[in-house]
Amino acid sequence: MGEKLYVGVVGGSAFAQKSWDDALAIGREIARRGAVLVCGGLGGVMEAACRGAKEGGGTTIAFLPDEDRSRANDHIDHALPTGMGEMRNMLIVRAADVVIAVGGEFGTLSEIGFALRIGKPVVGLETWELAKSGEPSNAIVVAADPIEAVDRALGLVTGT
Amino acid sequence: MGEKLYVGVVGGSAFAQKSWDDALAIGREIARRGAVLVCGGLGGVMEAACRGAKEGGGTTIAFLPDEDRSRANDHIDHALPTGMGEMRNMLIVRAADVVIAVGGEFGTLSEIGFALRIGKPVVGLETWELAKSGEPSNAIVVAADPIEAVDRALGLVTGT
Amino acid sequence: MGEKLYVGVVGGSAFAQKSWDDALAIGREIARRGAVLVCGGLGGVMEAACRGAKEGGGTTIAFLPDEDRSRANDHIDHALPTGMGEMRNMLIVRAADVVIAVGGEFGTLSEIGFALRIGKPVVGLETWELAKSGEPSNAIVVAADPIEAVDRALGLVTGT
Amino acid sequence: MGEKLYVGVVGGSAFAQKSWDDALAIGREIARRGAVLVCGGLGGVMEAACRGAKEGGGTTIAFLPDEDRSRANDHIDHALPTGMGEMRNMLIVRAADVVIAVGGEFGTLSEIGFALRIGKPVVGLETWELAKSGEPSNAIVVAADPIEAVDRALGLVTGT
Repeated sequence: MGEKLYVGVVGGSAFAQKSWDDALAIGREIARRGAVLVCGGLGGVMEAACRGAKEGGGTTIAFLPDEDRSRANDHIDHALPTGMGEMRNMLIVRAADVVIAVGGEFGTLSEIGFALRIGKPVVGLETWELAKSGEPSNAIVVAADPIEAVDRALGLVTGT
Repeated sequence: MGEKLYVGVVGGSAFAQKSWDDALAIGREIARRGAVLVCGGLGGVMEAACRGAKEGGGTTIAFLPDEDRSRANDHIDHALPTGMGEMRNMLIVRAADVVIAVGGEFGTLSEIGFALRIGKPVVGLETWELAKSGEPSNAIVVAADPIEAVDRALGLVTGT
Repeated sequence: MGEKLYVGVVGGSAFAQKSWDDALAIGREIARRGAVLVCGGLGGVMEAACRGAKEGGGTTIAFLPDEDRSRANDHIDHALPTGMGEMRNMLIVRAADVVIAVGGEFGTLSEIGFALRIGKPVVGLETWELAKSGEPSNAIVVAADPIEAVDRALGLVTGT
Repeated sequence: MGEKLYVGVVGGSAFAQKSWDDALAIGREIARRGAVLVCGGLGGVMEAACRGAKEGGGTTIAFLPDEDRSRANDHIDHALPTGMGEMRNMLIVRAADVVIAVGGEFGTLSEIGFALRIGKPVVGLETWELAKSGEPSNAIVVAADPIEAVDRALGLVTGT
């Protein structure tokens, strides 16, 4: 039963219209492509992506920072409390085969870094830009829109 | 979407016929009752419970100690690598509403203790017996057979 | 610099005179023997053991469940916030070479189980008694008093 | 006993002369200022910083990714095995009051992101440069040299 692909979607928990629309479309496309969405289970990008995935008939799994399920958004099939606080970010990355970052703040940055550290590809949509010594890093695969983000993400995992 | 009940099934990873049969029946009954099975994803009791749940048409979620899915048994819907080693035991307990312990060794004991510590009820089937100063503890709800174990577990969560 | 021995002391966080006295004596003896005390950093057995160790001129390290140091007791050299809640119990065990359990409730039980699971010896002083199928387990090395507890603990690690 | 300051030093584990020299000087300065060094305990920047701190008479604490102490560098007072793999990065950040990033790769990036996420200041020395929508972020306080890095770090914590 191991043939499923898991796509982590990470991004800010505060509402922003552009990120919301992007994450909604990403969630829908993940579902349409038959992959499972993994996220942090709260609001903002997490909620939009989950909603999109469920609208698309997909499956959503969330690692919650809390000890219970009370703050989970309404579009999660399996809301998993961890009691680990923000450290649960790393569980999202561990469970995902590839990560899509949509906008996002410092938590998203920690997830991008951790994913790259443990060898999981990261696709970014209007997210952090990285450089060292003035030299831009191409570690994050930049996508132009939600559909391309999912397409690139799945391609990076399946090698197609 | 939060009305599902999650039942953690914990026990030894080594094969033993009695525990295997018990865990298989427990998995089937969890599925029949519409609950989701959460476990550690490897062999022995974990495998039997997952197999039973899938035979019963249920859903199975596993927290793996490893960084990848390669050691997951064949009956898991969502195998989640954690990279946390044996510490992943605590994630099983955090995600579960109630825990059923079947036989088991020291890992199972750690899960029983952690569940009771964080207020999750534990039902035991031929598992550890606890005492202090020679006085038996009734913290583990003892079940006589697999069907009763699931029935007690769900009753403890739903208050029925 | 790796020749130090680390002794984890676990037990209840609520005050009880007998456990307090025992833990105080254990902390002192750990210090006298030149080992480092590792614990959970809060009250009860943790506080008494830390106090004893500092009275004895030893070193104390604590893994706190919280995100900050505010709840640490007053006798800790290095109070390390983890933000992992009760899951920090497992970090105490991971950092220790051997664990001494003094009295204790379910958290202590989780630490005993986890230590035994990952191969760390456990010495118990008026703590949990374990059995399976009515057969007492000798997995916990029972000590009669604090001095013997530390002596047994260090002997189990150094093989003397 | 809670007046100590803990400075996390993060950076690459591979040897690079410039980062080595910087980390060595940072370690020395941390010790000279009376703060405690927290790091990941392995090679490269971690080793140089620990060596510098010990040369300066300071104290060093390390969270190891492994289940044992065997890979710890030779300059650590308290090497704490976690068994959590790369997720131990987050424990370094949790235990630190402020983080200094020296060069570094993706692991360092995950630590920078996590620190900023949970409100711990980050001082950078030739490390990652962050931007969003082409706009540079000033979230990382940039230092020109090791002494300034430590001075800025301690200033950010003590408000001086």
